[in-house]
Amino acid sequence: MTYCIALRLDEGLVFLADTRTNSGVDNISTFRKLHVFCPAPDRVFVLQSAGNLASTQQVLDRIEQDLSGPNPTGLATVSHLFDAALYVGGLSTEVAAQHRDSLARVGADGRSSFILGGQIAGERPDIFLVYPEGNYIRASDDRPFLQIGETKYGKLVLDLAVQSRANIELATKIALSSMISTARANLSVGPPYDLAIYRNGSFELDEGRIEPDSPVLSQMLGGWIAHLLAGVRDLPTIDPADFRS
Amino acid sequence: MTYCIALRLDEGLVFLADTRTNSGVDNISTFRKLHVFCPAPDRVFVLQSAGNLASTQQVLDRIEQDLSGPNPTGLATVSHLFDAALYVGGLSTEVAAQHRDSLARVGADGRSSFILGGQIAGERPDIFLVYPEGNYIRASDDRPFLQIGETKYGKLVLDLAVQSRANIELATKIALSSMISTARANLSVGPPYDLAIYRNGSFELDEGRIEPDSPVLSQMLGGWIAHLLAGVRDLPTIDPADFRS
Repeated sequence: MTYCIALRLDEGLVFLADTRTNSGVDNISTFRKLHVFCPAPDRVFVLQSAGNLASTQQVLDRIEQDLSGPNPTGLATVSHLFDAALYVGGLSTEVAAQHRDSLARVGADGRSSFILGGQIAGERPDIFLVYPEGNYIRASDDRPFLQIGETKYGKLVLDLAVQSRANIELATKIALSSMISTARANLSVGPPYDLAIYRNGSFELDEGRIEPDSPVLSQMLGGWIAHLLAGVRDLPTIDPADFRS
Repeated sequence: MTYCIALRLDEGLVFLADTRTNSGVDNISTFRKLHVFCPAPDRVFVLQSAGNLASTQQVLDRIEQDLSGPNPTGLATVSHLFDAALYVGGLSTEVAAQHRDSLARVGADGRSSFILGGQIAGERPDIFLVYPEGNYIRASDDRPFLQIGETKYGKLVLDLAVQSRANIELATKIALSSMISTARANLSVGPPYDLAIYRNGSFELDEGRIEPDSPVLSQMLGGWIAHLLAGVRDLPTIDPADFRS
């Protein structure tokens, strides 16, 4: 599986993705699921993917193909971020349709989901969830995050902690706590983790990769687990006798 | 949906279940999903249910029917806990089969899952997950808990905290932290929460219900959230520049 998170804050955008892929439990590998496109000085995009790996790779190849050559199209020429989301959604449904029959014959599903974020000059930065059906939703100020893949394990901390007023440092910690919670609970999500941070109006991305053997990663996990266990211990003791109806 | 947890510890068993049911978002109600059966002095059972509400109610009625009358059968006469699990699994598949065609016509699914736990004199107490197909698994000493329903949101704290050596007070706190995490992240799980505690060899259950307006519940949730947020704040600050490959 996969877990990707994107957060939209007053000062910028934070993107975090795991890299684990699996086709059955005996075919586990590492693939990048966070991709950056800077096709012109007035625009920058981050695309995160979940779902059928072959489909997401073909969508990425189609995007690159449209950007190459003397007259780039696609992400190079869309006027608005929502046009970019629809463009990705259109490619995604085309690719899924191309392979639908052959995949259906073996009980497989070629669909994929994306998070597209970034900024086009003249517009506010934004993040969009592109559904396998090709339509999209944006994050809202009340719920300024989007998730794709294994979204349930790490949702609570996002619900509790993410506010659009959070600064980028805190938002990065929130995203990481959600990611390490998910990876600890579900083997199909795992490091390295790709991180990209965008500050509004900068038109450049700060990127990094947290490797599985990074000392910071084990420090994070140890501290996070210690807080969870302290949280359990500090709950009041419940005697059912006090709660008889 | 539903969330039910059962833990098997060295000193006994802990069962916790929510009570929220929904048929669409406009038909939300409260039904008990934790049921206690003491059909003879040498045996005690707790049955937790998830899935199609009509099916689980019919299974419960079939169990009660077998226990009534001058010659009780079913849970009153099974020789082993695993026989009880197979008995419940058999009823469950029969009920699902009875309604399969009519439910399939409207795209619905009549299947349900159960956790059956308890003790029969001469055997160790145990907990079993009964699948919709009628077969079962037990908890293990390495993973001494079972979940049914919305299992993902609250799995991490169970993974981290539950050991068969935990005492019943701590295990009850672990179960509650998993439950309140789930309910906070998913509207389809909610209070009142039914709690049942069994001490090995006692052949009686301690039962209680934590109501939505219980001061202990808001105290728990507040403390739990505070620990999670402190856990986020205490994560190290990550600068992507330190993690460039």
